[in-house]
Amino acid sequence: MSEKYIYGFNEGNAGMKALLGGKGANLAEMVRSGLPVPPGFVITTEVCLKYLKDPKILDTIWDGVKSSVSALEKDTGKKFNDKGNPLLVSVRSGAPISMPGMMETILNLGLNDDTVEGLAAASGNRRFAFDSYRRFIQMFSSVVDEVDSGKFEHVLEACKKKLKLSFDNEIPAEELEKIVAEFKKIYKESTGADFPTNPWEQLRKAIEAVFKSWNIPRAVTYRKINKIADDLGTAVNIVSMIFGNLGDDCGTGVCFTRNPSDGTNKLYGEFLINAQGEDVVAGIRTPIHIDELGKVMPDIYKELCKLTSQLEKSYKEMQDIEFTIERGKLYLLQTRTGKRTAAAAVKIATDMVSEGLIDEKTAVSRVAPEQVEQLLHRQIDKNAKKDVLAVGLPASPGAGVGMLVFDADEAEAWEKDGKKVILARPETCPDDIHGLFAADAVVTSRGGMTSHAAVVARGMGKPAVCGCEEITIDLDAETLTARGRIFKKGDVVTVDGTTGTVLAGEAPLVEATFGDDFQKILKWSDEIARQQVWANADTPEDARRAREFGAKGIGLCRTEHMFMATDRLPVVQELIVADTLEERLAALGKLKVMQKQDFVDIFKAMDGFPVIVRLLDPPLHEFMPKEPIILDGLAELEKKGQGKSEEALRLQKTLAKVRQLHEANPMLGFRGCRLGMVYPEIYEMQIEAIFEAVADLTARGVAVRPEVMIPLVGTKPEMKFFREMTDRLAAEVAKKTGVKFDYLVGTMIELPRAALVADQLAEYAQFFSFGTNDLTQTTFGYSRDDAEGKFLFQYVEKGVFKENPFSELDRDGVGALMKIGVEKGRSVDKKLSVGICGEHGGNPASIAFCCSIDMNYVSCSPFRVPVARVAAAHAALGALK
Amino acid sequence: MSEKYIYGFNEGNAGMKALLGGKGANLAEMVRSGLPVPPGFVITTEVCLKYLKDPKILDTIWDGVKSSVSALEKDTGKKFNDKGNPLLVSVRSGAPISMPGMMETILNLGLNDDTVEGLAAASGNRRFAFDSYRRFIQMFSSVVDEVDSGKFEHVLEACKKKLKLSFDNEIPAEELEKIVAEFKKIYKESTGADFPTNPWEQLRKAIEAVFKSWNIPRAVTYRKINKIADDLGTAVNIVSMIFGNLGDDCGTGVCFTRNPSDGTNKLYGEFLINAQGEDVVAGIRTPIHIDELGKVMPDIYKELCKLTSQLEKSYKEMQDIEFTIERGKLYLLQTRTGKRTAAAAVKIATDMVSEGLIDEKTAVSRVAPEQVEQLLHRQIDKNAKKDVLAVGLPASPGAGVGMLVFDADEAEAWEKDGKKVILARPETCPDDIHGLFAADAVVTSRGGMTSHAAVVARGMGKPAVCGCEEITIDLDAETLTARGRIFKKGDVVTVDGTTGTVLAGEAPLVEATFGDDFQKILKWSDEIARQQVWANADTPEDARRAREFGAKGIGLCRTEHMFMATDRLPVVQELIVADTLEERLAALGKLKVMQKQDFVDIFKAMDGFPVIVRLLDPPLHEFMPKEPIILDGLAELEKKGQGKSEEALRLQKTLAKVRQLHEANPMLGFRGCRLGMVYPEIYEMQIEAIFEAVADLTARGVAVRPEVMIPLVGTKPEMKFFREMTDRLAAEVAKKTGVKFDYLVGTMIELPRAALVADQLAEYAQFFSFGTNDLTQTTFGYSRDDAEGKFLFQYVEKGVFKENPFSELDRDGVGALMKIGVEKGRSVDKKLSVGICGEHGGNPASIAFCCSIDMNYVSCSPFRVPVARVAAAHAALGALK
Repeated sequence: MSEKYIYGFNEGNAGMKALLGGKGANLAEMVRSGLPVPPGFVITTEVCLKYLKDPKILDTIWDGVKSSVSALEKDTGKKFNDKGNPLLVSVRSGAPISMPGMMETILNLGLNDDTVEGLAAASGNRRFAFDSYRRFIQMFSSVVDEVDSGKFEHVLEACKKKLKLSFDNEIPAEELEKIVAEFKKIYKESTGADFPTNPWEQLRKAIEAVFKSWNIPRAVTYRKINKIADDLGTAVNIVSMIFGNLGDDCGTGVCFTRNPSDGTNKLYGEFLINAQGEDVVAGIRTPIHIDELGKVMPDIYKELCKLTSQLEKSYKEMQDIEFTIERGKLYLLQTRTGKRTAAAAVKIATDMVSEGLIDEKTAVSRVAPEQVEQLLHRQIDKNAKKDVLAVGLPASPGAGVGMLVFDADEAEAWEKDGKKVILARPETCPDDIHGLFAADAVVTSRGGMTSHAAVVARGMGKPAVCGCEEITIDLDAETLTARGRIFKKGDVVTVDGTTGTVLAGEAPLVEATFGDDFQKILKWSDEIARQQVWANADTPEDARRAREFGAKGIGLCRTEHMFMATDRLPVVQELIVADTLEERLAALGKLKVMQKQDFVDIFKAMDGFPVIVRLLDPPLHEFMPKEPIILDGLAELEKKGQGKSEEALRLQKTLAKVRQLHEANPMLGFRGCRLGMVYPEIYEMQIEAIFEAVADLTARGVAVRPEVMIPLVGTKPEMKFFREMTDRLAAEVAKKTGVKFDYLVGTMIELPRAALVADQLAEYAQFFSFGTNDLTQTTFGYSRDDAEGKFLFQYVEKGVFKENPFSELDRDGVGALMKIGVEKGRSVDKKLSVGICGEHGGNPASIAFCCSIDMNYVSCSPFRVPVARVAAAHAALGALK
Repeated sequence: MSEKYIYGFNEGNAGMKALLGGKGANLAEMVRSGLPVPPGFVITTEVCLKYLKDPKILDTIWDGVKSSVSALEKDTGKKFNDKGNPLLVSVRSGAPISMPGMMETILNLGLNDDTVEGLAAASGNRRFAFDSYRRFIQMFSSVVDEVDSGKFEHVLEACKKKLKLSFDNEIPAEELEKIVAEFKKIYKESTGADFPTNPWEQLRKAIEAVFKSWNIPRAVTYRKINKIADDLGTAVNIVSMIFGNLGDDCGTGVCFTRNPSDGTNKLYGEFLINAQGEDVVAGIRTPIHIDELGKVMPDIYKELCKLTSQLEKSYKEMQDIEFTIERGKLYLLQTRTGKRTAAAAVKIATDMVSEGLIDEKTAVSRVAPEQVEQLLHRQIDKNAKKDVLAVGLPASPGAGVGMLVFDADEAEAWEKDGKKVILARPETCPDDIHGLFAADAVVTSRGGMTSHAAVVARGMGKPAVCGCEEITIDLDAETLTARGRIFKKGDVVTVDGTTGTVLAGEAPLVEATFGDDFQKILKWSDEIARQQVWANADTPEDARRAREFGAKGIGLCRTEHMFMATDRLPVVQELIVADTLEERLAALGKLKVMQKQDFVDIFKAMDGFPVIVRLLDPPLHEFMPKEPIILDGLAELEKKGQGKSEEALRLQKTLAKVRQLHEANPMLGFRGCRLGMVYPEIYEMQIEAIFEAVADLTARGVAVRPEVMIPLVGTKPEMKFFREMTDRLAAEVAKKTGVKFDYLVGTMIELPRAALVADQLAEYAQFFSFGTNDLTQTTFGYSRDDAEGKFLFQYVEKGVFKENPFSELDRDGVGALMKIGVEKGRSVDKKLSVGICGEHGGNPASIAFCCSIDMNYVSCSPFRVPVARVAAAHAALGALK
């Protein structure tokens, strides 16, 4: 056999994770660094992969295993299968990428009726020896032969009951001997064979079990979820057993080189005297804070501090370390990168830069964009008790507490009275905006991650749980019912939008962490990133917030929300119901004054930064009252004998219009620039308002960089028409005001066809902004209003998607179109500015994709700007695939 | 000047159309063939293009014009600008592609106060000379200087009134002299200048006017509509005038070498003695049948027959010829390919093959696929008087006569009573299917070319006028109102779906022409075509009809129509309302028996040909009663005190389900294979039914070639899931029945994403069928239900589209996706069978595209199969771009 399939710990290093697995490579590295590690060796991942194809490989390597065991015997002075001073080993899996708890481990291997006596003699502790033996039988039977663990537990329980004991560790040695006999009986009954007494046979079966555990369902699922390749395989670590449970000069523990909660640079962890690793986890005894170790074993503590600090310096990363003390000697059993909270990640990364351990790029790469979100919202205190009322979709992160209210007007009124409110609705619509604004958080029983409530809440940075189908909301009774409990208006609940949970009562919240360290990370991120981050903002307040969060422009300023304001809606409705161009122009005249002021305010807030204003997009019926409301109004008038009154006629006209505007599929209907083609006067009004605002501000010394964006363009003639319209009106305003100003005209790319004919559009469009919400809908043929409630989550569950394509950009389909769009657009105009303004612009994986196709910027809701800044840096670092 | 800008007729030939224009090249060809053509010359299209950029080119060529005129003088023995025997010329446009009537012509050029006297003397006819003079002034003023022609007509009218004359040609010479003076005055008043007396100045201005006429709006529009390039330019033909109005030995006429109405091989046309060409067209005197020429001028007639026959032989195509007889001498003034009806096209093409004039490919290329449609439907007699009631969209061709009925049930009942009925509805829905089936034709006041009524009617080959917004239908009063006229139930109307016209009363119809000649054309087409033509057919009757029309397979057999049948709908509704899998399986069990029989019948009808069965596609709510109907039912029960009855409970459950199934955008919702993912048992039932039918028939010796098509697939996991489901069920049925059979599993490509990931789908799909109706909707983001009523026709009007993309495939967008889909699919499976089953499969231009991307077949409604067969042949011939 020419290849090397087995490595002693003294033969490897940290760089060999692919071959030796993470655990094996790290143990080898520790040996290299002279750290006290129990002797052991590794069977490589290659053997695993070969084994899974053909188990005969084990015959080939068996001599190697035997000589490696001999080496262990030499190192430890013990002998495998020896009655005198037996060598026991642990057999553990160790994959190249950590899959904690997914695969198998067997401890104390090497025990049988003979060697257990040797162990008893050598340890001077018969109880310990037989306890180790029964643990081994239990573990081996379950892992190797899939014997139900419950059968063994049953025996233990019966014994404790008989002896009136509370804990396993109170069972005396002689009882344990009986238990071992019973365990072996269980094994025989379950498998039809005697429990293997030959340690070599035990070892071979254990190795095989670890190899096979690569493909057990929970491991396969874990890899699928965590996007780990299936062809890596696991290594097997065979390590001589160290015992922390031989007496009070023994112990075991786990520690982090820094505090994983807040990042403080001080050893953090816990330990138990006279215990095995299992016991720390099992929670039978309460572990002791690591600081106490300094009191009970000061030398060991000092050594631990020194060694772990050495490890951290060597790895230049915070370490999570397992250690065991056997008869006053410290052993390190494992080291790995420590998991940490977002706050800790930020502090550790910036501290390590200050300490000269890592550079700024590495610091940024250590803060996951996904984690950043945690820093931006209030959260429920992790330690709080939770009275879960119902669970829905985590639609908008953060937590809010308040009194239940079922109506937007009431939410607004209560909020004005200084109350904190939670708005609960079956679903929300644009009419509820003021209620959403007033509420501390939102709950809906219907709708998905991209339902109206979810989108608006995320835009506002407001916690929301949506599509909470466990909940029934009775708007008439003003009650919320879930899991058999009824909550009335005014009852206090807590909404945890981060997890999608609704809690009864007030849960304690912790504030967002957005300190100097994080600002450093953001600053470094901007220096690293090749893409700017812009924000979607419709109001001056949003624009200011976006700027505070570091946005370098506004990628999407929607004008329809301006149309929705209470004082404007009647004028908008006048406009829609108008029969003639003249009537329309009269209504538009009134709107223009207001629109102009909107733009003045937003442009001022973004002084010096570009602002992309999107012209009117939604179908007109969204601005109209719903049919039942009009019918109710008419019925009322009829009752009062006013069925022929002017008001009644107005309502009838409105009704006719609403019916005329009705569409089977409004998403694919009369909206976007189609409105501007049929009623050019509407777009003309908006464009004039923009340029008049620009001229005013330019004259007053504000640096305005307006970009006019035409929505839903799908053809070249549309783009040409609106480019010419915009240029004409800009020239007119410039002439009228005598002010010179610059501007751009561009389009959303939100239809497959727009991407496919992007070269044609780029003849007239000066910039593209990918509207990936709509582009995802049309590319997949999914209406997000329908799909998420009806089948999309089932699709995610059935594995059709790894991620909901409305959350994470679909690279193969939507992404392919985007790539085509960017390439075709730039084939005509090399310098064409390209960005994204769909919600994906705030999703790290999607940002990585946008960066990979050379976009100029990503635009997202103001609250996600910091996430996007870090994500853009990660993309530049190639840290995200 | 090195290039040749001017060609004498004796210098060109028929191949020089690009340079000399169609008219000039044909005249030159006639001269080449020794035919009697008046002497003349051509200024090339190149000069026109240069002139439009810089008019100075005329200076450069002017010497050439002069020497060409000299040549004419030599040929005719007359002299330009000569008092004795003046040469007069016509100046005519002549573009490379015929644009009849679009550009300018001036006759009798060369006349002034001096030459008119020469003409009078030479012709011995003073009246003739001054009539020619006044005609010239009128034409020249209008064409060259845009003087309003009405001013001249006004003078003529006044004169006739004064002299109490009825016709222009009754005005005596002396009055014409006065009129000439008045005409010159009008010219001076309108232009501020004297009428040009110098014939050279006249000629130069006339040439310029012809060049400029290339860009007059009507010409530009004509080119746009007919897809003629703008950079061709027009040639100018300058021809010595020949006069057919010098006396009774003169005359003029138009003839076709064969009958353009029915194709009979005999000279066809009409003529006038002592007349100019204008007079034939003007309709002042009724022209005489060409046969009469044989009696009045037997020699001339014989010569004409000989010459025209010679022309036809030379062009190998039916010719449309203008001729003039001047003092007993025959001149041919123009020849061009003659326009003809579809019936004539077929007869002429097949006759010419029999005569050995052309080969079969040429014959097929002479029958336009668009014309074929005329042959397949009854039409209103062209000569009938039409009492137009309203005009809408020509939704489905052909004509039908019957009594107005406003309800589908009634339509069915009346039809059973032997009455012919016309179903008139505001719009139709699947519930109206039986009414559509019973009716002779359909009229709807709402909906577009792809509305339900239009699609179903085209599928059934039934005439339909849709979106006829002039019409108001009052379903309660059972009246149809249009243009102030009210029609009641039972009133007879005629529907002309070919033109989109509805007529009052019974118009005479002519039957479809589908004779032996046409069968020859179809046979030759199949031999030429590289693509097969399949049909979309849902019933055995459709399948049989498709076969009769020459379909080589069924490209789309929809199963939902089977679900709609009156006896099945209640079972389908049971299925939908079911709460549990068991209830669903029970309902499915009942449906399966019926489905199996459906498939047995269709497979039998298509013995030997492939049949693609599409699994259930539409959203479930389409099978449910509408909400108002359920509410009415409930109210009724309530009234009867049966509000708690079993029926009421059932209705309430149905209502709840209908509301649950409601979708904001059903087009993008829970339909297609999404149903099959969430309720696999539905698809399993259908697949089993298919294979059980296959096994039965295979055992009985029928050659069944089933292909199972999964609708609305957008992702690889979907395709994988259904491929595996189908394979598993096929194996089960084969095992159960002991019958071996072949089958294919494939998918519709009807979502942009499906095209973009076609390589992934092709791993599991064995064929692709492009569903271009839905693909067009999602690619453009147009809901066809909404777009056609709301903005699409405005878009066509405004020139955003040349054609409605639901009628003619959009090559740049939808076509680009199709190309991607075919290429990606075949990159995985070279032999992947690809077809189209959208309505575009019956549209000639779209078929040409499908052929260009190497599809295997196109599938269309049975009635369009002959159209598609010819179109596929044309595509192969490259006759369509």
